[in-house]
Amino acid sequence: MLRVGILGVRGYTGEELIRILLKHPRVRISYLTARLNKPAPIAEIFPQFKGRLDLWCENLDLSQAVQSADLFFLALPHTSSMDVVPTLLRGGKKVIDLSADYRLDDYRLYEAWYKVKHKDKANIKKAVYGLSEINNSKIKKAGFIANPGCYPTAAILALAPLLKEKFSPREIIIDAKSGYSGAGRRPADDPFWAELKDNFKAYKVDAHQHTPEIEQELSKLAKKKIKVTFVPHLLPIERGILETIYVKVSHQPCLAGRQASAISHQLTNAYKKYYKDKPLVRIKNEGEFPCLRDVQGTSFCDIGVKVSADQKTIIIISAIDNLLKGASGQAVQNMNLLCGFKETEGLL
Amino acid sequence: MLRVGILGVRGYTGEELIRILLKHPRVRISYLTARLNKPAPIAEIFPQFKGRLDLWCENLDLSQAVQSADLFFLALPHTSSMDVVPTLLRGGKKVIDLSADYRLDDYRLYEAWYKVKHKDKANIKKAVYGLSEINNSKIKKAGFIANPGCYPTAAILALAPLLKEKFSPREIIIDAKSGYSGAGRRPADDPFWAELKDNFKAYKVDAHQHTPEIEQELSKLAKKKIKVTFVPHLLPIERGILETIYVKVSHQPCLAGRQASAISHQLTNAYKKYYKDKPLVRIKNEGEFPCLRDVQGTSFCDIGVKVSADQKTIIIISAIDNLLKGASGQAVQNMNLLCGFKETEGLL
Amino acid sequence: MLRVGILGVRGYTGEELIRILLKHPRVRISYLTARLNKPAPIAEIFPQFKGRLDLWCENLDLSQAVQSADLFFLALPHTSSMDVVPTLLRGGKKVIDLSADYRLDDYRLYEAWYKVKHKDKANIKKAVYGLSEINNSKIKKAGFIANPGCYPTAAILALAPLLKEKFSPREIIIDAKSGYSGAGRRPADDPFWAELKDNFKAYKVDAHQHTPEIEQELSKLAKKKIKVTFVPHLLPIERGILETIYVKVSHQPCLAGRQASAISHQLTNAYKKYYKDKPLVRIKNEGEFPCLRDVQGTSFCDIGVKVSADQKTIIIISAIDNLLKGASGQAVQNMNLLCGFKETEGLL
Amino acid sequence: MLRVGILGVRGYTGEELIRILLKHPRVRISYLTARLNKPAPIAEIFPQFKGRLDLWCENLDLSQAVQSADLFFLALPHTSSMDVVPTLLRGGKKVIDLSADYRLDDYRLYEAWYKVKHKDKANIKKAVYGLSEINNSKIKKAGFIANPGCYPTAAILALAPLLKEKFSPREIIIDAKSGYSGAGRRPADDPFWAELKDNFKAYKVDAHQHTPEIEQELSKLAKKKIKVTFVPHLLPIERGILETIYVKVSHQPCLAGRQASAISHQLTNAYKKYYKDKPLVRIKNEGEFPCLRDVQGTSFCDIGVKVSADQKTIIIISAIDNLLKGASGQAVQNMNLLCGFKETEGLL
Repeated sequence: MLRVGILGVRGYTGEELIRILLKHPRVRISYLTARLNKPAPIAEIFPQFKGRLDLWCENLDLSQAVQSADLFFLALPHTSSMDVVPTLLRGGKKVIDLSADYRLDDYRLYEAWYKVKHKDKANIKKAVYGLSEINNSKIKKAGFIANPGCYPTAAILALAPLLKEKFSPREIIIDAKSGYSGAGRRPADDPFWAELKDNFKAYKVDAHQHTPEIEQELSKLAKKKIKVTFVPHLLPIERGILETIYVKVSHQPCLAGRQASAISHQLTNAYKKYYKDKPLVRIKNEGEFPCLRDVQGTSFCDIGVKVSADQKTIIIISAIDNLLKGASGQAVQNMNLLCGFKETEGLL
Repeated sequence: MLRVGILGVRGYTGEELIRILLKHPRVRISYLTARLNKPAPIAEIFPQFKGRLDLWCENLDLSQAVQSADLFFLALPHTSSMDVVPTLLRGGKKVIDLSADYRLDDYRLYEAWYKVKHKDKANIKKAVYGLSEINNSKIKKAGFIANPGCYPTAAILALAPLLKEKFSPREIIIDAKSGYSGAGRRPADDPFWAELKDNFKAYKVDAHQHTPEIEQELSKLAKKKIKVTFVPHLLPIERGILETIYVKVSHQPCLAGRQASAISHQLTNAYKKYYKDKPLVRIKNEGEFPCLRDVQGTSFCDIGVKVSADQKTIIIISAIDNLLKGASGQAVQNMNLLCGFKETEGLL
Repeated sequence: MLRVGILGVRGYTGEELIRILLKHPRVRISYLTARLNKPAPIAEIFPQFKGRLDLWCENLDLSQAVQSADLFFLALPHTSSMDVVPTLLRGGKKVIDLSADYRLDDYRLYEAWYKVKHKDKANIKKAVYGLSEINNSKIKKAGFIANPGCYPTAAILALAPLLKEKFSPREIIIDAKSGYSGAGRRPADDPFWAELKDNFKAYKVDAHQHTPEIEQELSKLAKKKIKVTFVPHLLPIERGILETIYVKVSHQPCLAGRQASAISHQLTNAYKKYYKDKPLVRIKNEGEFPCLRDVQGTSFCDIGVKVSADQKTIIIISAIDNLLKGASGQAVQNMNLLCGFKETEGLL
Repeated sequence: MLRVGILGVRGYTGEELIRILLKHPRVRISYLTARLNKPAPIAEIFPQFKGRLDLWCENLDLSQAVQSADLFFLALPHTSSMDVVPTLLRGGKKVIDLSADYRLDDYRLYEAWYKVKHKDKANIKKAVYGLSEINNSKIKKAGFIANPGCYPTAAILALAPLLKEKFSPREIIIDAKSGYSGAGRRPADDPFWAELKDNFKAYKVDAHQHTPEIEQELSKLAKKKIKVTFVPHLLPIERGILETIYVKVSHQPCLAGRQASAISHQLTNAYKKYYKDKPLVRIKNEGEFPCLRDVQGTSFCDIGVKVSADQKTIIIISAIDNLLKGASGQAVQNMNLLCGFKETEGLL
């Protein structure tokens, strides 16, 4: 049994990691931390775990941590992970970091978007970007994973097959809608919750910090610089991200002189082929599109694709549970890959 | 007191019309119809009106109708309005039709999108498209109003100032999100409701019947043919439409060599100026965008606008209550205009 | 036009008062206060009022207040009203206090339940308990109203006819369910909002501070000491209170030897008669019970009543909108009564 | 691997059974039926199972059924189970019936409450009432289980320790609140869904068909006739039942001369002792009560208990997920017991 530690367990992603790992047959949760006035049984913090997990949650003590687990999930706020990663890696521990601290290859981008100095530039290049389906073989050999953001996961999985198919996107617009758990459990002085009920709104319009992460990974896949227009919105539900992506394409040989329906058919098949061996990505049949209900509570990413009647716009819709495929589920998927477990162990 | 009749009162828009008109000081509801097994007091159909409106709801009888009211709101399903409009107009009655039957100038478009023969082509040209802010002066002189669809209302109000400013839109993408009341009270065999809770999904992707209505009115404003990509989504809330509109602009003298923030500033001012004398359209300050909470239960349309950092995309976000500014509220606004009442009477 | 001031306008009840009073033809809002860092236009605090109310919200200045309005609504937190009431009454102003500060005749009960010293005992006896339907004639002659709590409003209206009918209740159990706005806009360090979604729970079980208020008023109606068991619950919706009340009755001449349905019929008629001239209380027909949808957004109280098959328990269900009949709507109803306006002015 | 069949898989409980059994290490789903126009892959009926279960759903064929599985879950509507039970039992199959057909010992009660003739009286006495914690030893030896109703599960688990403690309840009032999935996927002509949003209401007041089931089982536990007043309500959420139970007690030696808090303490301990070895019942600490969030998605029943200040009323609050502990979860728990698996296999 692999001993697993979770640092920063009190947020949504920490709670979700416990929920998944309790059902995982190959691991044992051995260490939990959170910022607390004093240590407390985890069942007091999350009453749902009463009778299921008999473990205390403590304040982080790095030397104790290193002795208590073989692999660590960091469910810490952005900018806190880089305080602990160097020690854990030096201690020979495997680390899966759910924060944004090691996702951007260029620390200057990180510093510009997250508005803080990066304190551990040396380890950035050691981190493998953990989009499980795309970087599968690298992850299997990795010891340190930068787990992707929720919006980038849905966006990159939706666009990867298209870039592979050598469509040359002229413009990419990502209109994203997320349940509110994507924003984390919030600081106390935030009027956030009071405004959610029955509400809907855009936020950080063309200014969200996941934009450079999406552009970085798409550019690698396309082997050229890709820019996107990204507008996130807040849904009055707890879980789920649905992204409607509009790709304007230049004239393409494969499109010329063919009917929209034939092109939609070809695209759907290309998507199915691309994800043929990926158990957690499901491509909808032609004319069908994903909905949040089908992915909530699962680690699946569902994708549908269509060409507009005038053949100038490819419309791709992808859906994930932001806390699972968008965070903790993918983190466990990555653990499975790098530990040699079955990819979907504990996730289906 | 103007005597007002509502035909087809049992749907959402009929219920909403009663709610508004009960508080309107210049009118009296005098005639209500619905498809019923037998006539019933309206307070039995809608218990909320008990103690507020003592009137029976009957099956439609056109000769009785003509004697019972001076102005009619048709809250009938699409394709039913054209059965009654000729008689009402011949009887000299004022008519505000909330269905789609008389919105499209070209009956062939109507027949193609609504999949039914048009039975009253003669009266199409008599109908004034009732987007109150745009067609204000025509509405004041009209006797017959085709009340706009909910999606077109939010889209056209959002785009009108831009077209007026002579931006030349290369492409327009409208990503729309609507509460479920937009779909009306549904037929019995529809699994619709069971799937709504905590769900979110796109529907009629690039295939919604409001598309030609949007294109027709935008083309009139731009004085040239305008096409849009329109994808509606279903929100798990009852009321409200928010549309995120992406306009790709070609090189523009007014953009050249200027900062994005300066352009956003200029656009915001242009929007404020355009709607200066329109009491039911509110333009958000620069950097702010509308949210559904602020328009739910009101007849306002709130709009925010911004240029993307690379200055290639103008992002406009508009929000309305689909049952009010998107249907019954605008219908009353049109009644106010054509009867010479104060434009916002009963609506603020 | 009566000049009206609202103190403490930033909470739910203050916002709701503005919404109602803007449509009231006999009053003009002339003064608004809230605890602010600096004065601000009310449309900045509540964007929904943009274009509808052009007034600044200021920090409370009592001498300015006295000059600025003729009647004051106090939408202040409990324990804050008693700081301002003496000055306003001395200034000859009419006052409608929505807090609990003057509801309990016995200040010792207030101090025990609200855990604070009462600072204005002298004025307690001047306050009329503003349950509009019950204390109608007193309210008409009053200058100072203690507006009832939300739970007591639904409970007392539901039980008053029964006590009048001389049923001798052996035991009264009130199982109450409230939307979360009943708890007010919360202090910042409260995990309250995060726990609401799709949740349901009891709180302050047999320990809610509205208990003595309910018992005080029922005892007055019954002319003897009445005790209740009161358990409130929190619904995952914004507005509405529904109370299911179980009254165990001792042997009653009127029950002996009669069928349950006949007794239910008799009770329903007694309720209808009791509220015959009260426009804001609606009694459901026999076999029907209220639901929240029919009262949300209105100032109605709907009530249904039934005797259990074994004739030992009378079940009464009442429903109100906690922010309207349970707070701001009733406050305006009381203003109408004491100013000689029509009782339902601005409320229907 | 035990081969398991599910008859009537298209409702909520069928869907939930698949979800649980897919993660159960000791069984294999081998047969699925529903009323269909033609057979269909289960992943077409429930897209969430795409990639997880590759099995066709067929119309029921009893002779094929008997050959296809060893144990059957009947997720059929009430009155349909009795059409298939005789054949399955004759075929030597184990049967867990989630309908109400075999729960009531007295078929006349069944016929009176469900308004239909019972067609299989002979097998009623063979059925073990599957309230896992109460009838544990009988279930282990059983071949045919009548799985309890959702309301009775929460009510009986909440009251069993009290009856065991020899409190003599004078009156029992059960005020129950359920998410709407408790009503099943509804027939097409039902306006049910449209009325749910943000609504709350009582239904079948003192007239719900679960009443005799509750009374039957409580009477067995108390070894005397027990009657209850039972009023169910509908919550605007999908899952969860919370019941607030008021027990009026006559003078009790154990209460005399003691403080309410001491009695609450004693009761809490008695409850903890009663359920000491039951992994799926959790007793809240004194002063704490359950909430739906902690049980949604789990097969736990959480219970809290308190005596009122005047010591005349014991208040017990219990919470379950109506689809899990209230239906499919308990059905699997019963399968585990009667097959000799670990009681919580697949459920934690």
